[in-house]
Amino acid sequence: MAGRVLVVGAGGQLGRKICDTFVSRNWLTFGADVHFPAPAASPMVQIDVGKVRHEDQGKFLISALRSHERIGATGKIDAVVNVAGGFAMGTAAEEAVLSASKNMVESSLYTSIIAAHVACHTLRTGGLVVLPGAAAAFSPTPWSLPYGTAKVAVHHLVRSLDETSGLPAKAKTVGLAPQTLDTPQNRAAMPDADHATWASLEEVAEQIAAWCSDPEALQGGHVYLIQKGKGAAASFEPRTPL
Amino acid sequence: MAGRVLVVGAGGQLGRKICDTFVSRNWLTFGADVHFPAPAASPMVQIDVGKVRHEDQGKFLISALRSHERIGATGKIDAVVNVAGGFAMGTAAEEAVLSASKNMVESSLYTSIIAAHVACHTLRTGGLVVLPGAAAAFSPTPWSLPYGTAKVAVHHLVRSLDETSGLPAKAKTVGLAPQTLDTPQNRAAMPDADHATWASLEEVAEQIAAWCSDPEALQGGHVYLIQKGKGAAASFEPRTPL
Repeated sequence: MAGRVLVVGAGGQLGRKICDTFVSRNWLTFGADVHFPAPAASPMVQIDVGKVRHEDQGKFLISALRSHERIGATGKIDAVVNVAGGFAMGTAAEEAVLSASKNMVESSLYTSIIAAHVACHTLRTGGLVVLPGAAAAFSPTPWSLPYGTAKVAVHHLVRSLDETSGLPAKAKTVGLAPQTLDTPQNRAAMPDADHATWASLEEVAEQIAAWCSDPEALQGGHVYLIQKGKGAAASFEPRTPL
Repeated sequence: MAGRVLVVGAGGQLGRKICDTFVSRNWLTFGADVHFPAPAASPMVQIDVGKVRHEDQGKFLISALRSHERIGATGKIDAVVNVAGGFAMGTAAEEAVLSASKNMVESSLYTSIIAAHVACHTLRTGGLVVLPGAAAAFSPTPWSLPYGTAKVAVHHLVRSLDETSGLPAKAKTVGLAPQTLDTPQNRAAMPDADHATWASLEEVAEQIAAWCSDPEALQGGHVYLIQKGKGAAASFEPRTPL
């Protein structure tokens, strides 16, 4: 049965791919972001939060969902997927360490807290929340304090976000922990890397859509490490977050 | 030999006690905060950062230290101690979850990143950085996403902040992970708790001063869990951060 999903970070490359994947499966697909590079070509519902303060985005998104004719005041959705976020290098010695940290915290952590809040009020019993972790945050990150601190905070959300923290009964939260994803930007930045070991956006999007269709087998509170052997399909392995 | 220390969060109860302890040991004591309830009674140097943006506080503090006659452009300090931060309850369902998270991130994490940055540029070889973690952040915190996510991010800083992330050679970073501290506010909030198992501000301040005087025995990259048995002295036990 086709479901209903909210994708946060829908304006990014991975977010667009995820939205397209859900649309192709006939899901009612809401995509939120602070910026969209282009109007949606597909019948997804774009929600632009670029002019909404962080503090108000949760309420704004809940209202946007409930104002849709197929949701209404009491309808529920099946999944909330957040893939917002960025990347930054930088040690503590660099002058920009605080501003880089703010960018990472706002784009990864605050969007995840907003997604969690929306899920508390709109997710169905047994629904799924997917949050944007990082393989790097399983280890110390002296090479990037901004990226590591924000991602480890998202991992902590993954292990903490359950029914006692406000989710509906039997709902689950998992994290995504990709290493490098295969994008044109990453190929340009790392031309000599072995691109055959990078998971594609399609692989990640298909896996997320499969999870949202059937969260039963997932281990809630775990972060799924995304790996890919040369010539193999990407694998998704649950790990304890920290 | 008396040393030199910067205490961030010097306007709070624990911060004031720490400053007083260093002053009583004849340390040159700089205390920074966004607010001081009263002018310093002791000969410590108060640095008010209440009107300085987060992004500029690192540079501001470095400049304030270097403008002191006993430091100068090339002088170093022995330790940077951050005890800024607050406390918040709250699940993801609560409307204020994002604003509470912002408060926690700004007061605990951003001050720690600022303290780390200042340490990179002013700490002596083999000096010490002490950051404000929390015993709660060793476990999931569904009862407080704002507090848990900010503190686990500080713990990640503790395990990541070393020479490769910009600290001087042989410098160490440790975290403080108190359970409830014995303050008038905590006694008022929890009148029926066993106050004999709460570490006092004096015990914590004395331990920090001892560590800063001799960081040799400390395990860098560890968070020290503060516990206290009934009638016993507070203990400080190193743990891996996560």
